[in-house]
Formats: sequence, structure tokens, C-alpha cells
Amino acid sequence: MDSHNSTRPGRQDALRAAMQRIGVRDAQVRAWTHLDPDAAGKISEGGSGEGERPLEGVTVGVKDVIDVAGMPTRHNSPLGSSLPAVLDAPCVSVLRSAGAIIVGKTDTTEFAAAGRDAATANPHDLARTPGGSSSGSAAAVADGHVDLALATQTGGSTIRPASFCGIYGFKPTWGLISREGVKLYANSLDTVGFHARDLGLLQCVADVFGFARASLPNGPLRIAICRTPWFEQAEPDTRAALADAARRLAASGVETAAIDLPGGCDALEPAFHAILHREGGAAFLDLARRAPELLHQDFHQRVASPERYDDDVLRRSYDIVAQLRVAVEALFAQFDAVLVPSAPGIAPLGRGPGNPLFNQHWTLLHLPVLNLPLYRASHGMPLGLSLVGPRFSDGRLLQAGEQLIALLHEHQPLPA
Amino acid sequence: MDSHNSTRPGRQDALRAAMQRIGVRDAQVRAWTHLDPDAAGKISEGGSGEGERPLEGVTVGVKDVIDVAGMPTRHNSPLGSSLPAVLDAPCVSVLRSAGAIIVGKTDTTEFAAAGRDAATANPHDLARTPGGSSSGSAAAVADGHVDLALATQTGGSTIRPASFCGIYGFKPTWGLISREGVKLYANSLDTVGFHARDLGLLQCVADVFGFARASLPNGPLRIAICRTPWFEQAEPDTRAALADAARRLAASGVETAAIDLPGGCDALEPAFHAILHREGGAAFLDLARRAPELLHQDFHQRVASPERYDDDVLRRSYDIVAQLRVAVEALFAQFDAVLVPSAPGIAPLGRGPGNPLFNQHWTLLHLPVLNLPLYRASHGMPLGLSLVGPRFSDGRLLQAGEQLIALLHEHQPLPA
Repeated sequence: MDSHNSTRPGRQDALRAAMQRIGVRDAQVRAWTHLDPDAAGKISEGGSGEGERPLEGVTVGVKDVIDVAGMPTRHNSPLGSSLPAVLDAPCVSVLRSAGAIIVGKTDTTEFAAAGRDAATANPHDLARTPGGSSSGSAAAVADGHVDLALATQTGGSTIRPASFCGIYGFKPTWGLISREGVKLYANSLDTVGFHARDLGLLQCVADVFGFARASLPNGPLRIAICRTPWFEQAEPDTRAALADAARRLAASGVETAAIDLPGGCDALEPAFHAILHREGGAAFLDLARRAPELLHQDFHQRVASPERYDDDVLRRSYDIVAQLRVAVEALFAQFDAVLVPSAPGIAPLGRGPGNPLFNQHWTLLHLPVLNLPLYRASHGMPLGLSLVGPRFSDGRLLQAGEQLIALLHEHQPLPA
Repeated sequence: MDSHNSTRPGRQDALRAAMQRIGVRDAQVRAWTHLDPDAAGKISEGGSGEGERPLEGVTVGVKDVIDVAGMPTRHNSPLGSSLPAVLDAPCVSVLRSAGAIIVGKTDTTEFAAAGRDAATANPHDLARTPGGSSSGSAAAVADGHVDLALATQTGGSTIRPASFCGIYGFKPTWGLISREGVKLYANSLDTVGFHARDLGLLQCVADVFGFARASLPNGPLRIAICRTPWFEQAEPDTRAALADAARRLAASGVETAAIDLPGGCDALEPAFHAILHREGGAAFLDLARRAPELLHQDFHQRVASPERYDDDVLRRSYDIVAQLRVAVEALFAQFDAVLVPSAPGIAPLGRGPGNPLFNQHWTLLHLPVLNLPLYRASHGMPLGLSLVGPRFSDGRLLQAGEQLIALLHEHQPLPA
């Protein structure tokens, strides 16, 4: 297993650099809820053999709905604990065993779900949101505080802030990474994801977690362009970006094809809402009972009204999604990857999480998604596009992303 | 919401009685890994209004893969933590808010999965296993230490020990109870379940968790009898029990029908093994990396050989199970409940968990299952049969169980 970067600075230097950058910037950006340079400096046991620490010295921020041993998990909620977690969540532990330095915890939408927004600003324009719910993770990476951040995605919480902040965001296939030690919101949707400025680092991370790195077939790259059934809600920036990328890919010799999702995929949206509402109701029942006055109304609504999506609706939602998963993958498997919007447009003003419409259906289908930070759009703000593929095509998706970036380049000005 | 029992003893009396029984019996039965009468005596905050504590004074054991605040979670592994958990798992918190007394932690197969057996004996015959992986939970309830226990089921870990120990076991529909704070093994299988000696208590628990208690239709009960495709692995006791129950139900005016599972259901078994292996591999990756020498070989096998069930096999397994779920439910929905074996036979000698063959496929299909402690079989050992129904029929299943017990009675001698 190759290390990400053989010229990487030593652990203490990397940590010192991170703390210095955070010290300069975080009063404005407000990405962090907890920093612990002493704990972060400690070296993990295990994995000490040759080539076993491929993330040695990589600095990491962890979304504050994920447990890190010795740090509190606050969830941006008065119900979060001020006591330090006993154990690292497995996703943290795997990074730590590979040599990563866990710098601290990053701000989040309340319970990575609803309720209170993170306090975090978008580093490209402090008046704008970094997107949510993985707000602090995206901002901390985009602003150069750390190399890597752990995020989560239940609707669009990894990919959308990556697009808003101009970084890579990677949401693996559902189930490939343990979700233990991560606040549960909707068990059949929740996925651990990653933010990085460097696609090679994400490939290294995927290797550490053991995703297959099946090679793309030889020959020209085959990229489908899918506007999705929700494209009329895309803003002019996103429309222009998808058109520009399609044009430039075709001009570069990539085999491109415009595709529509299979018939019936308009059923994904109500199914998503039914599953989110009912699984969320089960996830927050305990807090609604234990301390009702401290739980945001958003959560009480889910707990108190399961009949809004009754058992039959929930059952049909699970079943129709399972059918559509097969149909969508049969289509997607004809290409190396499928290019789709990452968000309706650039980051809005304020602190809201943003609209998950262009993310939630891939999450629901359990598909891997990779945001590519391709454009500078209106107001000089970043705008990404996503690659999506069949379940378990994670390794190929990262390789396709590498090839697309080589052709299209990062952070290009969006043509008027 | 009705309380389970208005003549229940006071909290301190209930706790004292539990500790006394444990003191007399646990040197033989070895159900417990941690007891904390002081912590258990504390009354939970919240839920203090009229009628909001329907489990007031109910004593509870918690399987030692589930977090209880202030108690260590040891998982029957050298990798378990000796530090107390910070938070109650939501399933514990909901019981506590309803007035339940959390007495301590019960022994389990290592990580509720594989590796080391629990030290627990079957209270009906100390030479025999109580079944696993929820070994201590089933034994503590069967032996009268506590009223209720929290269990989990990934294959057959709630229902099978309930059958072996002669108690009620209830595995709800997948997803109805939060699995946060519970050791993760296989995310699309793991389900929190319950053990009790009293079916009314399980109905009260289901009410506390908000399961619909939809009434059964008027008219005679309609019970399907399903031998399952695995019946040739049933021992004579289980064959006799299913035949006797079918005969007596029919004689009692119940509409009975022998049914076979829909075509294709023999695909459930390989799909179960593929999903268990791959999801288990993801769940134990962190421990295999962090402390390989302390992790049992059973877990290393899953982590180290994902290719045993490759991505395409795993994908097809998920998809075929989703299809079979629809087909099985269409059949089962024609009845009030379906009566099936709970286990191949009585509890074997030793400490092993037992064979999950008659449980794992319902878990895989996400269906609710209720073990009824119907028989005394060979060697005077208990033997149960299970009711199973479509997803979200949990309330109706409990009602059907109540009617069946009224007709068939508990703990009947099995006819020769």
C-alpha cells in the first residue's frame, strides 16, 4: 500500500501547522467545536509495520456527531455530552491506525439532521453557508486547516458542502464503512464520508478502508451525463456547469452520452421522505422522552407523527427503492461513471445546510458519489459536479474522477 | 398507556428481590457480567407525568454489547472497554424513561457474533447452553433474576435462546428500534430484541416503543403453519411440536393452513451468509487493525477475505432478498400470523450458541418474530415455536401470540 505522500512533514510539524492555521482563521470560519492538540499528538498503537501507516501525519477533523476517544461528542445540541467519549468510532480508529492525526471536532447541523445550523462560515465568503450538515468538516478542509475530514451523509451532507466549499467530497457505497459510533439518524441512509482538497488523499483513504481499486477498462472513458428528473430546480450556474463539462469532455475524446433515469424514478423523492421521517422518528425517540424540552421541534415532529408516513407507505418505499436500485444500476453500469449536479447552485447566503435534492436520491440508492471541485461560478464561489456509479464501484469512481480532473482541471471559471 | 402491572412492588423492593435471586443463583447460572445495584436504584429523569412510567419497577438485564451509562461494555472480548459508557443506548434510555430499573449487564457470545461463548448455563440444565448470542439475557429472565432483558438478533440470537430457555423472545421488525449504542455486526441484519417470562410485559414494552397495536380482525384466528425449506434439519422434538400445535389449533377452531415459502427462497441462505460476512468484515476492520492479537480468528476471517463473497455476489444478495421480502409478505399477509420452528430442537449440551437456521432468514427479511414457550420436550427441556408476520405487523403478532397461548398454554409436555 503506497503512502499518500512520502515528503509529508513529521507528525508534530503537521499538527503545529494545522493549529497555526486554525489560530489565524477560525475566529472567522468557526469550523471547530473542540481542539485537543495534546491528545492529537499522541501516536496510535497498532499498524506499526512497514507500509502500514499510509496516512502518517495526515491531519484530520471529525464531524462532531462521530465519537473520538477523549473528546466530547456535542452534536450541536444541548443534549450532546460534555463527557469525553470512551472509544473512537471505527471510522476514526481505522484512520488513526493508519497514522492520521485526529486534530479535533468540527461543527455540524444539530445531530447531522435538522434543528440548529452550524455556526461555520464558508471560507470563500463569510456571509455564505459552507453547506450542511458537515459544515465544519468542509470549511476546515477548504480553508486549509486540516488535510482530511470525516463527514456523514443522510441526504446530501457530505457532497453538497464539498460543492459549496470547492473541495473533493466522497460518499462511499452504503455499508462499506462501519457507522458505529456515529449519531444515528436514518439507518438505511446514513453513510460516513470524507472531505479533502486532494483526490490522491481520498484514493489513499479508500485503500486504507479496503475498497476494491478495480481498474477502469482500457480505451476511452465513457461518461454519462444525467440531468436527473429534478433539473428544473437547478440554477443557471449548475446548468452551465453541466453543459460546459459535457462539451469539454466530448472535445477531449471522452465518450459521452446524455441519459435519463429509468421510468419510475420520480417515486424516489416521496420514498426518501417516508424513510427519513420514520427512521428519524425511531432514532430520536429516546431524546424526545428523556429531555423533551431540550430537543428541537424538528425532531419531535418525526417522533410524534409516524402516521404521516404509515407502515404501508414505509414498506412500499423500501420495496420500490430496492427495485429502482436494480434498474438504475443496470443503466449506470454501461458507463465508467455518471456526471450529475452536486447542488442546485452556489452556496446561499446565511448558515443553512442547503437543498439536498441533487444528493438524497443517490444516498437512498446506496450509490457512491464523488464531488469534483470543477468551477468558480457566480460571485467567485465554488461549484462542483458529482460522479456517481453503481454500488461497490467506489474504486473505479475515484479513478474516473482523477481522469476527469486531468481533462477539465479544478476551479475553472464558469463560461458566461 | 396502561401500566404493565398496577400491583408491582416498589422500585427498591423490586431491585432487592432481583439482587437476592441473583445472589442465590448466579454462581451456577453465570448470566451476569456486571451488576450495579447503586446505579440501578437511581430513578431516571423525564417521563414523570401521569401514565408516563408504564414500566415502573420492571427489572431489566442488558446484553453486554449494549451501552448502559456508568457501566462498562465488555462484549465478552479482551477488546471490550473497562471504562463505563457515557450514555445509555437509546433502547436502554427508552426503558429507563418508562420507569424500568437497569440492574446490570448480561453475558454474550463475543461481540454478539462469533468467537468466545458466554459462560452462562441453561437454568433448566446447567450442562446445557442457554443458546446465544443473548445467553445471559435469556438465562437471567428464565431463572427469575429480572423481569425483562434486552437482547439482539443478527441471525437467531434473541429467538433461539428464548426457545432453549422456555421464555418469550421478541425480535421486532428491523428498524423500529434504534440500534445506536449497540455493537454493530451486520447493519442490515442487527435488531434489538427482548426476553420476558410474561407476554403482557412484552406488549407493554411494544407500546412504550410506539409500535402500532392494530387489532386483529374479528372472526376466527387464521394461522399458517410453515415447516420452512430447512425442515429436514429439524429434530424429532421440533417436528412433533409443530405437528401438535397445528392439530390443537385446528381442534380449537383456528383456521390453519400448511404453507410453503414462495419459490426462490432457497436463495435466502447463501444471501444471508454473503451479507453477514461482508457487513461483519466492515464492522470489525477497526479492531483487526488496532489490536489484531486480541481479536478472535473468526473476525479476522471476515475482515481479511472480502473476496469470499465478492461485490457482485453481495449486490445480488441484497437485491434478491428485497424481491423475496415482497413475495414472502404477500403470502404471509393472508394470515394473522405464521407458525414456524424456533430452533432445530432443545438446547444442546455445552455452551455454544446453537444453530440459527430457523431464525436467520426472518432476520434477513426484516420480519418480526415472537417465540412462544409452548413445550417441555426431551430431557424436560423447554422448546418453543415462533410466530412470524409481515414487516410492521409487530402489534398484531403479539396479539396473535396471546390468543395462541390462551389456546395452547405454556410449557406443555410434548406428546410422544
